[in-house]
Amino acid sequence: MTVLEKFYQRDIRALSRIISFVENREEGYRQLLGELYRMVGHGLRIGITGPPGAGKSTLVNRLVHRFVADGKTVAVIAVDPTSPFSGGALLGDRVRMQEFPAAEQVYFRSMATRGATGGLAAATDNIAVVMEAFGYDVVLIETVGVGQVELDIIDACDTVVVTLVPESGDAVQAMKAGLMEISDVMVINKADRPGSENLIDELKSALHLQKRDPDAWQIPIIATEGINDKNIDLLYEKILEHDAFTRNNGRFDAHRREQIKKKIINILRNRFQREFLDTLAGQVSFEQIVDDIYYGRQNPFQVGEDLYDAFGRK
Amino acid sequence: MTVLEKFYQRDIRALSRIISFVENREEGYRQLLGELYRMVGHGLRIGITGPPGAGKSTLVNRLVHRFVADGKTVAVIAVDPTSPFSGGALLGDRVRMQEFPAAEQVYFRSMATRGATGGLAAATDNIAVVMEAFGYDVVLIETVGVGQVELDIIDACDTVVVTLVPESGDAVQAMKAGLMEISDVMVINKADRPGSENLIDELKSALHLQKRDPDAWQIPIIATEGINDKNIDLLYEKILEHDAFTRNNGRFDAHRREQIKKKIINILRNRFQREFLDTLAGQVSFEQIVDDIYYGRQNPFQVGEDLYDAFGRK
Repeated sequence: MTVLEKFYQRDIRALSRIISFVENREEGYRQLLGELYRMVGHGLRIGITGPPGAGKSTLVNRLVHRFVADGKTVAVIAVDPTSPFSGGALLGDRVRMQEFPAAEQVYFRSMATRGATGGLAAATDNIAVVMEAFGYDVVLIETVGVGQVELDIIDACDTVVVTLVPESGDAVQAMKAGLMEISDVMVINKADRPGSENLIDELKSALHLQKRDPDAWQIPIIATEGINDKNIDLLYEKILEHDAFTRNNGRFDAHRREQIKKKIINILRNRFQREFLDTLAGQVSFEQIVDDIYYGRQNPFQVGEDLYDAFGRK
Repeated sequence: MTVLEKFYQRDIRALSRIISFVENREEGYRQLLGELYRMVGHGLRIGITGPPGAGKSTLVNRLVHRFVADGKTVAVIAVDPTSPFSGGALLGDRVRMQEFPAAEQVYFRSMATRGATGGLAAATDNIAVVMEAFGYDVVLIETVGVGQVELDIIDACDTVVVTLVPESGDAVQAMKAGLMEISDVMVINKADRPGSENLIDELKSALHLQKRDPDAWQIPIIATEGINDKNIDLLYEKILEHDAFTRNNGRFDAHRREQIKKKIINILRNRFQREFLDTLAGQVSFEQIVDDIYYGRQNPFQVGEDLYDAFGRK
């Protein structure tokens, strides 16, 4: 039996192998993804982001338990681009999985971020596609920070939970960072710590100040304590509410369609990389060109345009 | 007099305007950069990176004072992709500049990171080119974290200082994060805090374990206290030593040449974006395509290849 046949029979080892195959972009991964893509429905894709130390892993685990209690299967992708500095960062997948039933029901996968040059968001999306094709009802993507890479990752999620802690700073900062724009549900975790109520009040007035369409989704702000399982039910409810809300008003569809468009553009960009850039090296001697630039006889902008004109189109 | 003429006469307002012009990628910025590029020599470009709260701004300011004392002019670019979460982050440019003589001698510029989709490293490099063309002897690039974007930024620097604090974790983590690979000088700042000596010992044995070429640069580990101005002289010395070392053994040249090659590739990629992707939308109705994918009749990978084949080459 081939790995793909085993995959279709919901063999977990086949799933893990195919994820690695796609993550490492091995020969033929595009064809495979194309195949799997057709099996993907419109299941729930949730993003959870926030600063290091906001207790995201705990929140995610608690949420997974809720989904399991509702009879759903869940796959989690944990991405931590800041991991060297976040003090411990992600627990190992296996450690986290021990808390849960069999991997057919709850599956964890961490993304190796170093070395995934320029394609972390695409790689995360591809892995979500594999998981969805395998049949998981829910894919949870957990990511640290809101840099550009993380925003791209989170952008592919239908419902986004932004997790802050009382220490995260004030509402003005959160607004400046554009957190209001990306979040569908705001969580203040570790809400038993000092400063929590202030932050919640500030966020509330900040949200109130934004002149939002009354028919738009009203972003809830939820004070949770992950380790004490406090208000996790409320968080869970709000996530499902947001999902239902966007599915009813067409926003879910519109967002997915935007994502598909971005995906196509991204695929075209990769093709250009493979077909043009990677072969250019065989056609052109970069040595002389680089020399000219290094010694100020030429500039890279002019050289780039010239090369494109000469080789860019056959 | 045109802005460019004023720029050549070292007018600071003209410098600021041209930086904004380049940062915002206004019409004609490539031609301008091409022009400025030819004026750029092979001055010192230093990168300083580390986690939020490692005291990088203070260290940078102290180093700037050293350069000024040696009669050098210095430009600083501060990039903070994690700023929403870093609790205050960068001081405003003006506040930082107050500590220094006229902007002709010391110039600060923060990079707006949000919205700089996919091009933060390129934008940082472009601004460094403007600063170098203006005539600053030294460009210092200060960045938070070591995600992929930050690595790309730091990659363009000739000498890289990685700043840790005793709280940053252990040497194993630093090694796993690849910090040993990117750093030319390691700094443990706030070295008066507990855990400092342990971390230094660990880093030393970690470095010792790596079987390094005896002729290679030996990464120094320096315990500093930025706010007490402790060991800043030593740090300054080591930076200059590394610079001299790489210029003597050819590594400086080799690295700059690699950078030029990357820059050309990047310019070609941008051209593809402009010329192919941005015009594709006018030639193709994405609606039907997206529909086919959304309802599982097609997959984005096949569609991408088909579009490229049909429109990619004239």
